[in-house]
Amino acid sequence: MNCVPIGFVSSPYKIRGDAPKQGRLTDEVSIITLDPAYMDAAEGLCIGDDLFVLCWFDRSDRTVLKSRKFGEEQNPLRGVFSTRSPNRPNPIALTLVKLVSVDGCGLTVRGLEALDKTPVVDIKPYSDGIDTPRND
Amino acid sequence: MNCVPIGFVSSPYKIRGDAPKQGRLTDEVSIITLDPAYMDAAEGLCIGDDLFVLCWFDRSDRTVLKSRKFGEEQNPLRGVFSTRSPNRPNPIALTLVKLVSVDGCGLTVRGLEALDKTPVVDIKPYSDGIDTPRND
Repeated sequence: MNCVPIGFVSSPYKIRGDAPKQGRLTDEVSIITLDPAYMDAAEGLCIGDDLFVLCWFDRSDRTVLKSRKFGEEQNPLRGVFSTRSPNRPNPIALTLVKLVSVDGCGLTVRGLEALDKTPVVDIKPYSDGIDTPRND
Repeated sequence: MNCVPIGFVSSPYKIRGDAPKQGRLTDEVSIITLDPAYMDAAEGLCIGDDLFVLCWFDRSDRTVLKSRKFGEEQNPLRGVFSTRSPNRPNPIALTLVKLVSVDGCGLTVRGLEALDKTPVVDIKPYSDGIDTPRND
């Protein structure tokens, strides 16, 4: 189960302390530069789209099974599958962003919290119909 | 960027033709059997939780860059990053499910469309605060 990078993030966050806990907390933009080999897969993306970006957090600790919310000592330890901690067995981050502009292979998005040079592994359109909780 | 299975799906869908286009379209339950090595990471999951399940769709075609919605001939070809097609460079599926019950390593969930024996690579809690579109 080998992931390939479809592109890389250029962001203002160079080291872990720079990044917000969640991209939602900032208006910063980042650029996803797609590998030209995958440009055909981006056809149909439109300015203003809400997109899930799946990144491979290559600077995460994959051995961590429990963590504290926001890494703060006063919060209780919880299993990482019940948190959004970047440290987890498969360090795939899920972030809902807004597509701001497209310039060739460069997708400018608002709301990503990934560090500079983070590999991107997938992009998916958000859909109200399937991405909101079930009522049952 | 090597993914490890944290568990496997047991579902009523044995071959691709069996599965619904989206798990949302069915009330069927599936069981995610966690690898005991990752049980600590599941601590804190609660019945009724809305969870994103990330599966590795091992029977997908990773060479496909464009596809037609629902695979239907009358729909136009679109880049797979603007669709939820299971066929994509990294076949990671994202499905929002409801946790129905927990029995040891077995998590019973409603709303998963994964085929029987599909590897699971991550589980994340849904959060209104970050998983709904931005207003800007």
